[in-house]
Amino acid sequence: MHYCSSCGSSVEFRIPEGDDRQRHICSSCGTIHYSNPRIVAGTIPVREDRVLLCRRAIEPRYGFWTLPAGFMENTETTTEAALRETLEEACVHVELEGLYTVLNVPHIDQVHMYFRARMINEEFGAGEESLETALFRESEIPWKELAFPTVSETLTRYFQDRANNQRFEVTVDDIRQPLKPGANR
Amino acid sequence: MHYCSSCGSSVEFRIPEGDDRQRHICSSCGTIHYSNPRIVAGTIPVREDRVLLCRRAIEPRYGFWTLPAGFMENTETTTEAALRETLEEACVHVELEGLYTVLNVPHIDQVHMYFRARMINEEFGAGEESLETALFRESEIPWKELAFPTVSETLTRYFQDRANNQRFEVTVDDIRQPLKPGANR
Repeated sequence: MHYCSSCGSSVEFRIPEGDDRQRHICSSCGTIHYSNPRIVAGTIPVREDRVLLCRRAIEPRYGFWTLPAGFMENTETTTEAALRETLEEACVHVELEGLYTVLNVPHIDQVHMYFRARMINEEFGAGEESLETALFRESEIPWKELAFPTVSETLTRYFQDRANNQRFEVTVDDIRQPLKPGANR
Repeated sequence: MHYCSSCGSSVEFRIPEGDDRQRHICSSCGTIHYSNPRIVAGTIPVREDRVLLCRRAIEPRYGFWTLPAGFMENTETTTEAALRETLEEACVHVELEGLYTVLNVPHIDQVHMYFRARMINEEFGAGEESLETALFRESEIPWKELAFPTVSETLTRYFQDRANNQRFEVTVDDIRQPLKPGANR
């Protein structure tokens, strides 16, 4: 940020009076410009014993597999955002079955929230941001070709819970490591 | 937003190519400026049968009672934000006991997340944004003087769960009504 979005003057990066963090502050009109983490909302679309994944048609992680998810928009709820992204990326209608993972990713200022979801039928497709979509049994999941650590974490927990107690309790956890090439877990 | 924060030129408000929502787009450098919902993170600080509330020393809702909570900052996790706000506003150290409510407030582009928390001792105070803080039994909660609907909703659910099954399952719900003067529920 170099210029004030309110008046167009230059901004300074300093701690405002009464605050304890550096902010972008307009040198002319004094507006303080805050920046806050963003929510990525998505689903685990399930059809019987299989989970629907999307192969990304965009960067970052072009060609890698992901759960359908994306940035929550203003005026939306988290559930609306998860359903919209699922429809946009995988062309699939689902019924949400509850929040499942809340994964903080502080080094990129994001919080990823995944909901369990039941596919209403086996109709699905590839939206503009997907090369293809496909249903995977647990043994078929392309673990080394998953796009993001939050996807690996969510799927790992899902299959563990499904095999164990089927309680699917909500997890809040942190993903602290930056993504290294080839390291998805 | 009137000016591009990258180059200082004027911005237009229109739908970018390949998008379906209006965004602020720089007329000179083409930068698309996205705006997304913010997370408010907080706690329900509990000491035996009482809950700690803060009376607000700032607008909005000056003088009304609230649970300690505030905007999550970049580089934080949701749990770190909840603990920081609790310490800042109520000068109290707590141990988190799990996520409890996720309340979408789409008309103001916010998601409020409250964690249950156990007070380590009875030391607490009033931070800069609080006029006073105090412990309340259920029968003593000032329901008509609560600051925000998400606080009312979270406290109502908490006391219901405590009286009933003590399971304290995570709730995701929406608060759709704008706050009307005198209407906190």
